[in-house]
Amino acid sequence: MIPDAARQEFEDLLGDRFSISPSIVEQHGRDESSRPPCPPEAVAFATSVDEVAEVVRICARHRVPVIPYGAGTSLEGHVHAPHGGLSLDLSRMDRIVAIHDEDLDAVVEAGVTTANLNRRLADRGLFFPIDPGAEPTLGGMASTRASGTTAVRYGTMREAVLSLTAVLHDGRVIRTARRARKSSAGYDLTRLLVGAEGTLGVITEATVRVHGLPEAMVGAVVSFPELEAAVQTVIRTIQLAIPVARIELLDEAMVDAINRHAGLDQAVRPTLMLEFHGTASAVAEQAREVGEIAAELGGSDFRWAADAAERERLWEARHHAYFAALALRPGCRVVSSDVCVPISRLAECVLATKEDLASTGLTAPLVGHAGDGNFHLLLVVDPDDPDERERIEAFLDRLVGRALAMDGTCTGEHGVGLGKRRFMEAEHGEAVEAMRAVKRALDPLGIMNPGKVLP
Amino acid sequence: MIPDAARQEFEDLLGDRFSISPSIVEQHGRDESSRPPCPPEAVAFATSVDEVAEVVRICARHRVPVIPYGAGTSLEGHVHAPHGGLSLDLSRMDRIVAIHDEDLDAVVEAGVTTANLNRRLADRGLFFPIDPGAEPTLGGMASTRASGTTAVRYGTMREAVLSLTAVLHDGRVIRTARRARKSSAGYDLTRLLVGAEGTLGVITEATVRVHGLPEAMVGAVVSFPELEAAVQTVIRTIQLAIPVARIELLDEAMVDAINRHAGLDQAVRPTLMLEFHGTASAVAEQAREVGEIAAELGGSDFRWAADAAERERLWEARHHAYFAALALRPGCRVVSSDVCVPISRLAECVLATKEDLASTGLTAPLVGHAGDGNFHLLLVVDPDDPDERERIEAFLDRLVGRALAMDGTCTGEHGVGLGKRRFMEAEHGEAVEAMRAVKRALDPLGIMNPGKVLP
Repeated sequence: MIPDAARQEFEDLLGDRFSISPSIVEQHGRDESSRPPCPPEAVAFATSVDEVAEVVRICARHRVPVIPYGAGTSLEGHVHAPHGGLSLDLSRMDRIVAIHDEDLDAVVEAGVTTANLNRRLADRGLFFPIDPGAEPTLGGMASTRASGTTAVRYGTMREAVLSLTAVLHDGRVIRTARRARKSSAGYDLTRLLVGAEGTLGVITEATVRVHGLPEAMVGAVVSFPELEAAVQTVIRTIQLAIPVARIELLDEAMVDAINRHAGLDQAVRPTLMLEFHGTASAVAEQAREVGEIAAELGGSDFRWAADAAERERLWEARHHAYFAALALRPGCRVVSSDVCVPISRLAECVLATKEDLASTGLTAPLVGHAGDGNFHLLLVVDPDDPDERERIEAFLDRLVGRALAMDGTCTGEHGVGLGKRRFMEAEHGEAVEAMRAVKRALDPLGIMNPGKVLP
Repeated sequence: MIPDAARQEFEDLLGDRFSISPSIVEQHGRDESSRPPCPPEAVAFATSVDEVAEVVRICARHRVPVIPYGAGTSLEGHVHAPHGGLSLDLSRMDRIVAIHDEDLDAVVEAGVTTANLNRRLADRGLFFPIDPGAEPTLGGMASTRASGTTAVRYGTMREAVLSLTAVLHDGRVIRTARRARKSSAGYDLTRLLVGAEGTLGVITEATVRVHGLPEAMVGAVVSFPELEAAVQTVIRTIQLAIPVARIELLDEAMVDAINRHAGLDQAVRPTLMLEFHGTASAVAEQAREVGEIAAELGGSDFRWAADAAERERLWEARHHAYFAALALRPGCRVVSSDVCVPISRLAECVLATKEDLASTGLTAPLVGHAGDGNFHLLLVVDPDDPDERERIEAFLDRLVGRALAMDGTCTGEHGVGLGKRRFMEAEHGEAVEAMRAVKRALDPLGIMNPGKVLP
């Protein structure tokens, strides 16, 4: 419970940017997943790092949980408030502080979205490549160690973040690193906060790597008689270090769902969607090489999409995979799995999972960032059918068990939140205790997004 | 002081792999820097993770400092024993546990050297690109977050390490991550241990990314009338995302020293040494593009070294920069600086530093990993001249101050050890206190390489 004294202090600090309005509170207690909402007691809209620091100091004094909130696009209950407390909304901290063309980095407040950043970068011939699909804030993406379709080429938020400004449990403001590209000066607090989901501090600003817009971008689609051949195409492409910008795997069910939803006519077979970035000649060479590999493995229909409109249409359809899955069963919701395995095990993991799926009778098209070994099943669930929900949970348990047995992880990019805590011991063993020690050291009062990440 | 009871336990565990022999102890108290030795009290040669765990448990029981030792190639006193204690030599843990061709990773014990790993990888058409110059162990490289000439293309140990096995302060063994390429499952203990210099745990095994040997590797050398033009060539190359594998900057003094030492005849002017990796056509395109940039900026003598022997000879000369500098003043030693700045500030930082240098009368050729904004001055110092040593320390203070003012770091790749502790507060401010909290949490007894990293 937020005590009255704390409420008063929040109001004195923020005026009407402190809210207990039911609609605002309700909106801050849910994300884009099918998880039931769990609203905070109040919401604070911060507009500066100093305000964030002051809010956290008030929370510390009164032992009020503080839950950072960006765009609410997470999928594992990161913004839920199981222990009550304050949702700290950073979306109004949306200034692009600096763009350093020569250094290829940008300094942004936590509430800046990828779309807004990319609009500003485009004027200078630059872009920020990491693209999780939704329209998240950079602070949220850093907090969940997000990635998406382009990680195979440009890395994840782990690689993209050069430095963070963060507010610690006692209101102290730290900057985790300088803007130099590399450093060996002490503990990597940047990477410690990336993926910590607000449980070690509130990220208020990030310095991220950006890239020059490639001279040429070409898309291609190729389908295969068997899923195994599609995965082998991915493995050989990666082994030959062909720098594909995107290499996405879709199973027949996903292609079918996308065809229906977006009015496309892709062959309903296991499919790779590719994108190549570079100079015109480099892109042509890369595409030719991947085309040869695919052809050797029985791939056909190597369809090109060199013009921007066609490429956009294809990738937009891919980005709407979630909605395409939703549309398969009206009135239902989607639960997305997120395991990631070493690429050598990808075909085996996917095939065993599809067999498992077939035996359960669940509807779940598959889409994967195959170059990273990361794939999602979009499990379509009837919210009014508790039995189905239970079967899905049991299926997810088996899926994660399978991925862990293959030296994989329970989440490639969505994060732990509330949803994946139950797998942390199985995945990390004794290391969970080391994580707990770090948590106690940096959040001795336990007010920083409590209940998340650690079981 | 190691108490007699602890000595007995070490002997019971390790037999003659526990040593207090003066020559062995002496050898473990120095690195490749000019720093005076500071030997441990004893040395333990471990051959397995279980032995490391047992050694650390004995150290914990008796409050004996434990100092991990690999190849002794570090430069900032990382293996020195200012608080006495035990040097834990991991060089006999030199098994290559697994090479996963399809996943492009290798699992190695901490004592494996880059040279040994690369010999084994070459049989399979693979290589490990990170190359700090000396012949370090992978455990040591992970501990100091090492990089070197290829970081501009392949990243540093921060990016190369997928997972670590480490022994914590109480002998518990943890594995920091699975072998999946990416994960959002919890705190990034991998990156926390990378660069922690053994102060949070002893790294016993590492899973590192490896790469396919490129089809073509081509070297080139280009010299410039002015250093500024050389740096501008680097900036434009990086901005155009031309994936150079190496782009090294040498000043006139360095070229002169290398010419003398290696019998070469490079023009004594600011010089870039480049290397390109890729397919034959990609490499040709990259080289042509950089050649055009260099020509526009007044570069000349774009000398090619397409055949392996010529390329090796050039890079060997570059790798021996340290010895070339040493040879400038017989009987002297070399102190290497290691600042790294945003690349937009590199020319300014280098020019101001060379001006400063000129006014001090010190001998110090410059070589830099220009693509990262990281450069080294090889300060040649007479060990019998305390005044010169003092002038060098004062110069280093000014150099670091200059780099920090440009949002740079006091060490790009050598690490903190004992040598850079005095700059940590200036570089990190309040964040040092967060680092201390992490240190206390993961090393409550203060036995893990005490006195290093944190001031």
